[in-house]
Amino acid sequence: MEPVNIIGVGMTKFGVLDDSILDLAKSAAFEAMDDSSTVEAKFDHLFVGTQNPDEFVGRGHLSTVLTDALGLVPAGATRVETGPSSGSSAFEAAFAIVASGMADLVLVVGIEKMSEVDRGTASKILAKMMSLENETRYGATPTALAAMIAHRYMHDYGLTRDELSLVPVKAHRNGAKNPLAHFQKEITVEQVSNARIVADPLTLYDCCPTSDGAAAVVIASDKTVKEYGLSERAIQVLGIGHSTDYLAVQHRLSLTSMNASVIAADRAFTMAGITPSGVDVCELHDAFSILELVNMEDLGLVERGHAIQAVKDGLTEVSGKIPVNTTGGIKARGHPTGATGVAQIRDITLQLRGEAPKGLQVSDPKIGLTHNIGGFGNNIVVTVLKKRE
Amino acid sequence: MEPVNIIGVGMTKFGVLDDSILDLAKSAAFEAMDDSSTVEAKFDHLFVGTQNPDEFVGRGHLSTVLTDALGLVPAGATRVETGPSSGSSAFEAAFAIVASGMADLVLVVGIEKMSEVDRGTASKILAKMMSLENETRYGATPTALAAMIAHRYMHDYGLTRDELSLVPVKAHRNGAKNPLAHFQKEITVEQVSNARIVADPLTLYDCCPTSDGAAAVVIASDKTVKEYGLSERAIQVLGIGHSTDYLAVQHRLSLTSMNASVIAADRAFTMAGITPSGVDVCELHDAFSILELVNMEDLGLVERGHAIQAVKDGLTEVSGKIPVNTTGGIKARGHPTGATGVAQIRDITLQLRGEAPKGLQVSDPKIGLTHNIGGFGNNIVVTVLKKRE
Repeated sequence: MEPVNIIGVGMTKFGVLDDSILDLAKSAAFEAMDDSSTVEAKFDHLFVGTQNPDEFVGRGHLSTVLTDALGLVPAGATRVETGPSSGSSAFEAAFAIVASGMADLVLVVGIEKMSEVDRGTASKILAKMMSLENETRYGATPTALAAMIAHRYMHDYGLTRDELSLVPVKAHRNGAKNPLAHFQKEITVEQVSNARIVADPLTLYDCCPTSDGAAAVVIASDKTVKEYGLSERAIQVLGIGHSTDYLAVQHRLSLTSMNASVIAADRAFTMAGITPSGVDVCELHDAFSILELVNMEDLGLVERGHAIQAVKDGLTEVSGKIPVNTTGGIKARGHPTGATGVAQIRDITLQLRGEAPKGLQVSDPKIGLTHNIGGFGNNIVVTVLKKRE
Repeated sequence: MEPVNIIGVGMTKFGVLDDSILDLAKSAAFEAMDDSSTVEAKFDHLFVGTQNPDEFVGRGHLSTVLTDALGLVPAGATRVETGPSSGSSAFEAAFAIVASGMADLVLVVGIEKMSEVDRGTASKILAKMMSLENETRYGATPTALAAMIAHRYMHDYGLTRDELSLVPVKAHRNGAKNPLAHFQKEITVEQVSNARIVADPLTLYDCCPTSDGAAAVVIASDKTVKEYGLSERAIQVLGIGHSTDYLAVQHRLSLTSMNASVIAADRAFTMAGITPSGVDVCELHDAFSILELVNMEDLGLVERGHAIQAVKDGLTEVSGKIPVNTTGGIKARGHPTGATGVAQIRDITLQLRGEAPKGLQVSDPKIGLTHNIGGFGNNIVVTVLKKRE
């Protein structure tokens, strides 16, 4: 397998934005090319991760449309979709084409523009990721499923409402320092715990927003890294794992663990040749506060049932032993679904380069991890990235 | 790069079908698993090629939905989309993940169900593959663009209306022998030439139908091929090329050549280490009769301007020197867009195994080629397959 390197990254602000989906994608893509000195390079392939531009903004065929808009013709071009993990899966497909030796220089763009449709339409589009037969037709929503998980976790491990509120409080504290975050405002435990209930016990502040935004990364073979003199700067992709679970939550083994996270992480760690204790910084999927706790445990970053203690002890803070979502995560950085996975890769790359925003840089991290969920826990991708020595 | 092999294939009938999109996909997938003795195997990954199930049938997230429906959890699962070449691009992504060494056993499913929406809605969905700014807003349609190509080709090379009619006549003659083809009825030159004009000079019989259908292939590493004792039966994937062109036809170099075909073919032939003269049988994109001629020339199967002579001389017949679209092609086999690329791989695999339907088997072919177009000539994939010796 040919080694694969991240040599450039770019990202727009996440939030409710006026720019068109193409303008967002171009902005992130050109920043990543500029960052890697590849603006004038001949790219072999473009991968676009996007969940549903056809229904969110009425445009399709984005692989080709974007190749033309970016001046990358005649590169190969492919769109990848796995729900909200589309950006992560696009990165995986791009990784494979470089790792196989078929391509040397590849651009990965993640995009979503979700604010052009009204809330009801957005909910209908997003409901397609759930089981129609077992969930949607009974009125279940993603928040309702997350609430069920929260109840069970509280029952099993004694988590309290105010303890759970510490998770979005940390997210917003980090987001406040991230100039590209959707939410850049700190919140308090009282605000979270006393906010409007969306699905008991989860309140408004336990839930991520729907956002607009784009992110991009340039990946390259060792040969191309040398050619561009980027050996010092390049970040290595050590491992990738991808796994599914049963579509409907009721068919799964557990409410407080996502098996697809466990398996994807195991695959990524095995490929990388490291254990969870080797991870210095990570971005994981926290679309609902409770998921940050469940995911930390599924990834093996803490023992089962111990995640909230880690949060209370400050271990997940930027200065802690296991910094989690230093960008504000999906909760505060925002969640333009197709863009999220690529943004996570971009943000961990910046951490490993020592270029995170002021107040968010972890002290000299060597290994970073990303974890992203498509659907409700049923299509999960984990990557392990490493600073070159 | 790890060698990649096709070990199983499956396909539903193409046409206007009652089965749901999931039932079609399952039918093709289980046939491919059965064909490769992998019904009880642990698959590493599922790739689904589909253009727009969200708008054609109102269902999304098909990578995960199908993994669950096929009993393949916890395999990784990814949907790939590049317009009507989605199946070919899904095959390419699957190839890369096996070629990289990341996976040993992968299922590729191509599906589309296009008949549930009315003609107007279908046209609107398909129009997204064209340039909104340069084509669609001026009323251009895919048939209108193909008609423009036909006019230019007639002007440049002296092609007549009745000569062009030979192409769909051959397609229907082959389709009549293909039990899975959408159209299984022979037609005459007079019928084609005198049929209702869709866009002058193209008539109804120059144009492919919109269809429902699914196709599937199982691919595997050499290690897995040995494990299943399929070394005799396995077909090797020798080369893949993928290339784009400018979205709008007016921005391109030529009307009578698609540059993305030329480049994709060059990449596939280079990777395979063969020249066009080594091809014994091929399935190429003939959504409009004129495209079969243009594509034969772009692939280097005949010299520029000589394709119609090859058709007149019978060289493209099943018994000819360059058998083209022995299945009936997109014109007669049908065109459920996302399924087409996988069906082409399936059909060439059957040719190389000597298992084509009665009357359609080419005499002892060693090397086969597939060529598929996404959008109007702007996202093209070519594969080269080889019988083991």
